[in-house]
Amino acid sequence: MLAIARTEGFDVLTLSFRYGQRHAGEIDAAARVAVAAGVREHTVIDIDLRSFGGSALTADIAVPKGRAPATGEIPITYVPARNTIFLAYALALAEVRGAADIYLGVNAVDYSGYPDCRPEYLAAFERLARLATKAAVEGRPVRLHAPLLRLTKAQIVRRGLELGVDYGLTRSCYDPDPAGRACGRCDSCRFRLAAFAELGLSDPAPYVPLGR
Amino acid sequence: MLAIARTEGFDVLTLSFRYGQRHAGEIDAAARVAVAAGVREHTVIDIDLRSFGGSALTADIAVPKGRAPATGEIPITYVPARNTIFLAYALALAEVRGAADIYLGVNAVDYSGYPDCRPEYLAAFERLARLATKAAVEGRPVRLHAPLLRLTKAQIVRRGLELGVDYGLTRSCYDPDPAGRACGRCDSCRFRLAAFAELGLSDPAPYVPLGR
Repeated sequence: MLAIARTEGFDVLTLSFRYGQRHAGEIDAAARVAVAAGVREHTVIDIDLRSFGGSALTADIAVPKGRAPATGEIPITYVPARNTIFLAYALALAEVRGAADIYLGVNAVDYSGYPDCRPEYLAAFERLARLATKAAVEGRPVRLHAPLLRLTKAQIVRRGLELGVDYGLTRSCYDPDPAGRACGRCDSCRFRLAAFAELGLSDPAPYVPLGR
Repeated sequence: MLAIARTEGFDVLTLSFRYGQRHAGEIDAAARVAVAAGVREHTVIDIDLRSFGGSALTADIAVPKGRAPATGEIPITYVPARNTIFLAYALALAEVRGAADIYLGVNAVDYSGYPDCRPEYLAAFERLARLATKAAVEGRPVRLHAPLLRLTKAQIVRRGLELGVDYGLTRSCYDPDPAGRACGRCDSCRFRLAAFAELGLSDPAPYVPLGR
């Protein structure tokens, strides 16, 4: 998503969130990816969703393994109102820095299960954003971009490769080992591995050895 | 607002935010008010808007004094996307605790200046909330209540007094002294003092002596 925003001509500010995830690997990876892309500013926001509980990604609930993809059921890894909180912070940063465009990396596979990844949700947020800020009232409305929304994971990987993304820097696993290696079995790993496999490629990110 | 929610029959969870305000007095006051009202749970969330800058309430910009009320101009004390961030957290807490009703204390005087206090903003947030959560998708949509929205400050004070609110516990000042006494001169103090005066009452909250 960052590579697409850069290609579309934007000078990008990136925003990561520590929201009580089980692991900090994705935070470190996001910073590496931001630096590699030459962004103007990378901000990490601490948000304490852990005190609320209610998700396998933030509470002491096991991350499910080997689940069939895209069942239509909302997964237990859903984090309550997460994208709403993320987008609210992005809106605040955009207004303060004078930015009018917010990019969000949600995609088709996610929106099959998560309510806050659906197109109608994103349209409602954009509408809210156009009423919420001083900038919008003064004639600089926010545009929300979700360029990955309708792409399959394989299409996303291919687009990234075309734009020179080093997927060895990126992390997707919900439950990596202490060395930061992906588990290969959670939903996120399964979707990612299937995408690389569909393209006849291997994923350059580190995985725990098979059979563990 | 809390007294109204209690009167309307709700078992209430209260949520306060430390968002880099110049002073913690309102946080302490909110906890005192919550305890006095016998709420089930009071949560304080730390959010770091200070790193974003851009407001007299969170950055090193002087709080304006003696400004005429309700000029139609957005005041410098506007905090970018603040209510959107607050409501996003409230939505998360509501979903995790199984609550379907969110109360917000915005009111008529505020919405004359702040874009995120307007009725159309609140309607857009409710619409977003009904698309954002697993609870909503499963048939438990969120209702957003802003019972103070169309009341004048004097009507709010009178309604609170009818419901037994001890205004000596509450704080409104943007810029209190180190002892927590209200300045009496910022917009928030001016609106509050005018409301008590209109009712022929004196405000039981502490103020710095006149002439300072």
